[in-house]
Amino acid sequence: MTLTPSKLAMVPFVSVDHMMKLVHHVGLAKFLADVAAEIESDFARWELFDKTPRVGSHSDVGVIELMPTSDGEMYGFKYVNGHPKNMSEGLQTVTAFGLLADVYSGYPLMLSEMTVLTALRTASMSAMATKHLASKGARTMAMIGNGAQSEFQCLAQKAVNGIDRIRLYDIDMAATEKCAANLAGLGFDITLCKTPEEAIEGADVITTATADKDMQTILTDNMVGAGVHINAIGGDCPGKTELHRDVVDRSTVFVEYPPQTRIEGEIQQMDPDHPVVELWQVITSQADGRTSAAEVTLFDGVGFAIEDFSALRYVHSAIKDTPFYADLDMIADPDDPRDLFGMLQRAKA
Amino acid sequence: MTLTPSKLAMVPFVSVDHMMKLVHHVGLAKFLADVAAEIESDFARWELFDKTPRVGSHSDVGVIELMPTSDGEMYGFKYVNGHPKNMSEGLQTVTAFGLLADVYSGYPLMLSEMTVLTALRTASMSAMATKHLASKGARTMAMIGNGAQSEFQCLAQKAVNGIDRIRLYDIDMAATEKCAANLAGLGFDITLCKTPEEAIEGADVITTATADKDMQTILTDNMVGAGVHINAIGGDCPGKTELHRDVVDRSTVFVEYPPQTRIEGEIQQMDPDHPVVELWQVITSQADGRTSAAEVTLFDGVGFAIEDFSALRYVHSAIKDTPFYADLDMIADPDDPRDLFGMLQRAKA
Repeated sequence: MTLTPSKLAMVPFVSVDHMMKLVHHVGLAKFLADVAAEIESDFARWELFDKTPRVGSHSDVGVIELMPTSDGEMYGFKYVNGHPKNMSEGLQTVTAFGLLADVYSGYPLMLSEMTVLTALRTASMSAMATKHLASKGARTMAMIGNGAQSEFQCLAQKAVNGIDRIRLYDIDMAATEKCAANLAGLGFDITLCKTPEEAIEGADVITTATADKDMQTILTDNMVGAGVHINAIGGDCPGKTELHRDVVDRSTVFVEYPPQTRIEGEIQQMDPDHPVVELWQVITSQADGRTSAAEVTLFDGVGFAIEDFSALRYVHSAIKDTPFYADLDMIADPDDPRDLFGMLQRAKA
Repeated sequence: MTLTPSKLAMVPFVSVDHMMKLVHHVGLAKFLADVAAEIESDFARWELFDKTPRVGSHSDVGVIELMPTSDGEMYGFKYVNGHPKNMSEGLQTVTAFGLLADVYSGYPLMLSEMTVLTALRTASMSAMATKHLASKGARTMAMIGNGAQSEFQCLAQKAVNGIDRIRLYDIDMAATEKCAANLAGLGFDITLCKTPEEAIEGADVITTATADKDMQTILTDNMVGAGVHINAIGGDCPGKTELHRDVVDRSTVFVEYPPQTRIEGEIQQMDPDHPVVELWQVITSQADGRTSAAEVTLFDGVGFAIEDFSALRYVHSAIKDTPFYADLDMIADPDDPRDLFGMLQRAKA
């Protein structure tokens, strides 16, 4: 660190407004592709990272979690809540913010909103997994669940993998229409579907991002054709899954961090030793990805701390020389570290 | 919560500058006494709290920790680093910030600096423990270690317990002189001492707050007289203690949260089943505090998440109707929670 202490004492803060302006400044497609590349490069050095399962505080109506990680040089954590009942009260089900810090000094480097950023990194993560697991030349995706995450999933798939034929389905046609309207004019060939069966027709990739906190079977076994790649994004906490267990059984399952996915992912339905492949090992060529054109691959995504770390680090570097942050006076910086009291007394004057 | 979503989306932030102004607005002595009372009332309902040991990320030069807790209505956590080498680089050894959130919605309620606030709550905690454990009529305290924490310890003891005779000692006389100068005119009878032996002469209470990350023996057994109450504040992480184990052996040991204190406190020197009394049980009359005038009582303080929670909750209530906070745009608040993308696109215009 070459910054002076008084500069270190100010922490750059990226508000929701600044984040949205930053995204448009960079360009949404480029932002999604850049974050996917950042996640990929962090997955390639997976073993360097401190990996801790989330620290959750559960109540009857939801959960508040802290997700920390570190690569030995930077430390990051995300605060995130999950409150399914919030939607009916006009609130976000999930809100989040995050912090990046310098491991050497322990000083915070950046505080950032992460509600918008998490939506982006989740889409970038699916696209990065799809890049490594889908059949070559995949261009058609069924997007099941057309809520807050759906447009980002489609845009990231286009930016990273060139997937531009989208088949939308949601139990609520209004959500499908909203998604189609949002994606209009962005270079997609879009089909609105009335059933999941219709949506998956001819799809190379199926992405499920439904929101109910229940064991769902959005996809049953007879619906899934040979060679398909599935991103199951919506089953991301205990008691919430989207796929029938026969689908999981027939697929080769790829995960982020097994101890977390076995609790939160689709594989919570399976035996505790159900075989999984760690995605980082596919990226580093220590494990096989897709091994045949007929194989069904499943990315059982639950969202892991390293993805947030990658996204925060990207934002930290992207805000440089932009006006899209504000300095927060968050860290006390006395002239003499042993004289906090003197600093406090001088503030009186 | 009766606030509207758009108001909920703004998070009050208390900067270092605002915290110092708030402290002076309330009055430092009253602030310390108020926080002590808040901690005491939270200790009285100890069993309600979610208690998790700190989640630490360790490196060669320091540690970054998250300390979460919840009482079922509010959730709080503190980010805190510990980097002993920072001092020689002109940085704070410890910096901190914290967050309070609403358990029902998962939305943040307040973000606050906690470098200053932690110094205050640590002093309030010692004073509250002393109130329950020291001999009646105690008026004289030996303050061993005259760094950043020392003035706050003395002021909290005066505000809560009427202790106004202070005997200062530090291996660095410049620190002692700084502390004495800071306390001048605040109603203390102050003696500057050249040895720890001199400092403890006639002291009813001994508070140690030294900073070295080593096994120290600031106090040896022959120094500690009958009936004394000791607050050992400086030994607060693995590998760092201040008292000779004979002192600990002779004392009745009172702790915050045994699983944490056995790792971080003075009792890390002792057997894993060394007898301890939980302070909250003294407050609720489920356990004895001091049982005789000759007993040596030891509060082996390491700092627990509930104390930070109490302090944050106090600040959250104290900032109301003051100008000592700023609203941060930290939580995304789309008109339609399912349409985050629409909100992002509208920000382009």
